Amino acid sequence: MAPELTLENAQELILNNTTTLFFEHVSLLEAGGRILAEDLRAGENLPPYQQSAVDGYAVSDGWADLRSSFTLAGHSALGDYPAVTLNSGEAMGVLTGGALPSGTEAVIPHEKTIVEGNQITILEKAKPGNNIKQAGEDFEAGTLMLPRGTCLDSGCMALLAAFGIDKVPVYRRPQVAIWGLGKNVIPCHLTPGPGQTRDSNEALLSALLQQEGAILVASELAGAMTKNEIADRLAELLAKADLIITTGGTYSDGENDSRRLFESIGAQVFYWGVNIQPGSHTGAARFGQKLLFSLSGNPAACAVGYQLFAAPALRAMQGMNPCPLRVQAACLNGFPKKSGSRRFVRGHASYTVKGWEVEVLAGQKPSMLRSLINCNALIDLPAGSPPVERGAVADIILLSNGRDFNPTTKA
Amino acid sequence: MAPELTLENAQELILNNTTTLFFEHVSLLEAGGRILAEDLRAGENLPPYQQSAVDGYAVSDGWADLRSSFTLAGHSALGDYPAVTLNSGEAMGVLTGGALPSGTEAVIPHEKTIVEGNQITILEKAKPGNNIKQAGEDFEAGTLMLPRGTCLDSGCMALLAAFGIDKVPVYRRPQVAIWGLGKNVIPCHLTPGPGQTRDSNEALLSALLQQEGAILVASELAGAMTKNEIADRLAELLAKADLIITTGGTYSDGENDSRRLFESIGAQVFYWGVNIQPGSHTGAARFGQKLLFSLSGNPAACAVGYQLFAAPALRAMQGMNPCPLRVQAACLNGFPKKSGSRRFVRGHASYTVKGWEVEVLAGQKPSMLRSLINCNALIDLPAGSPPVERGAVADIILLSNGRDFNPTTKA
Repeated sequence: MAPELTLENAQELILNNTTTLFFEHVSLLEAGGRILAEDLRAGENLPPYQQSAVDGYAVSDGWADLRSSFTLAGHSALGDYPAVTLNSGEAMGVLTGGALPSGTEAVIPHEKTIVEGNQITILEKAKPGNNIKQAGEDFEAGTLMLPRGTCLDSGCMALLAAFGIDKVPVYRRPQVAIWGLGKNVIPCHLTPGPGQTRDSNEALLSALLQQEGAILVASELAGAMTKNEIADRLAELLAKADLIITTGGTYSDGENDSRRLFESIGAQVFYWGVNIQPGSHTGAARFGQKLLFSLSGNPAACAVGYQLFAAPALRAMQGMNPCPLRVQAACLNGFPKKSGSRRFVRGHASYTVKGWEVEVLAGQKPSMLRSLINCNALIDLPAGSPPVERGAVADIILLSNGRDFNPTTKA
Repeated sequence: MAPELTLENAQELILNNTTTLFFEHVSLLEAGGRILAEDLRAGENLPPYQQSAVDGYAVSDGWADLRSSFTLAGHSALGDYPAVTLNSGEAMGVLTGGALPSGTEAVIPHEKTIVEGNQITILEKAKPGNNIKQAGEDFEAGTLMLPRGTCLDSGCMALLAAFGIDKVPVYRRPQVAIWGLGKNVIPCHLTPGPGQTRDSNEALLSALLQQEGAILVASELAGAMTKNEIADRLAELLAKADLIITTGGTYSDGENDSRRLFESIGAQVFYWGVNIQPGSHTGAARFGQKLLFSLSGNPAACAVGYQLFAAPALRAMQGMNPCPLRVQAACLNGFPKKSGSRRFVRGHASYTVKGWEVEVLAGQKPSMLRSLINCNALIDLPAGSPPVERGAVADIILLSNGRDFNPTTKA
């Protein structure tokens, strides 16, 4: 029996149950990539006073013609306001970012001048204000510089530095615990005995979590723990994590039933089972403001489930747009199977002169790792789709790095 | 006098002078996003033996019809090879990843079965091999799993874990020192005195360097140091950095002439001056296998210079494709100035149902920070371009996050 809940309904339930995390103040160099939790206004003008925009010569005549000459009245030192006032016919050497002598009407870049002794000839026509940074021209005191919700990119970082802001209010990064419930799963550095499998989900999820800015606070395997031990440990993990991802143990009649586990500690399950392939045996629960996700133990199903269910919650917790970018792409190769349920096929998307293209990656069984290598897109095949032919156009979801080109993520 | 060297010629010189860094071994959880420095072959079959791909029932008849019944011969425990052999008409409960009893011809997922006492009725037709992972079906022993040059994404990480590989050979991350040469530039946490400016380039460059996987090993300001002190310190920084970026001090007749500085310590300048705006006063030098870049002190010119000159070198040092993705985009607004030299205008690109679009960001003076906020693209306007009209199509360079959609970055 395929579950009836659609992906979109499950995602809506997730976002309805997700709370933006409280904010914290971090130092400037830690703020890159974080989401601003308050509006930031300019505390003063930037620049604070008139400055030269180039290395060159401040001139007293804002409309001086090509080949006009000026008498050099000195060079202004950086780190000081020039004490001199420029009189008519005078010029002064100035450096980028330096204060200008009073009487300056324009600045001529040094490469547009000829200096002979104390005479300067200019090689371009002056215009009043040229190469002068006016006080407040970048940001005026009191204006909104960065609204709440801005992702602090390198430019924002530079702006914060220019205003001397070293304590930056940003949404807290989600603390995440991951927990493998499969009894036969062992840490990857051990050699599997009979019937045992190395844990690959820790490495998979830790890389994916890092891309979303989440902090991995615990990564464990239940192994031979009893039901009671598992429930006790889950309660402990809930105390330190904002979100818990369990993998495996989704078998409803077996020992490691993650749904019963979630319910046994008092978490409220808000969906269980979603009508997709791979990973339909998936569910989510809420415990206070914390979220628990149960994903498949099969690596490809785990990766798909993470991207469709856990990643949007992690983005929403940080005040980001939860939705990845969807585009249409031409398939570079085919996919031979019909899709009963809606299916998410792993692909490698690229943008070429022909537009978006996607390669169906080899090894699409949920248990296989091969289709996760170079996977940067999920191909979204509707329920009842016939085999995909080469050249067909499909909807694809661009993963993680695609978000920057999503128009709706703009602050 | 605009310099004559084109951007492409400068970039070619940079790549000709760039050496891929030596490799190092890092632990698995540190390897995410790094570039593999050796071919990796499968040391064994994955999976190592036949396993169940689902939680369900191993059945003895690979062609069993819908509604066929089997007698339950037990449940196989995980963590062991089942000692039982399935006889005709028998089934056994198995768990995902578990070994299968001999005699298994197919596995039926538990949700496609009805269990009554020790009788199991299957709700779908069996097919031989269904839901069985064959030994080596994901990767066969000896096959090339990941070629040298692969960017280790989350899928690669999972694969390394599955093979128990904890020492991963990756190219070393470039160690970078940044150094502000402007005499009036002070650390951003200080309050500027007359004629002083807070350093915003440290915050800008540290965020940009992080995106390229580089490690910031030193960030300093020359301030009032003498020429000799600066040269001595530069030699010290060269001992610990693979690449040095200086900002400011590009004025050819002033005190902080970075070209003369580079030459004074014996570095070989391979270009100086590039015919672009902003930031034409830029240059690069080589000292052994180390690179030195001189960028403008003006923030927007510094950011453009970093993206066009330093970032490609940092990518090449790590064995990555140095070239960012270029696309054509419709301009959402205009840019009012003619461009004498080739000009790089800061923009925000997004991909919509209409294709790529780019917004010309406000505040395009090289000295201003405003155009760097939300900047994820450079609009490449050829020399002699008229003002850009809204709706015009322009070439744009997608910054950092765009690389994943570049077909040439595929391993």
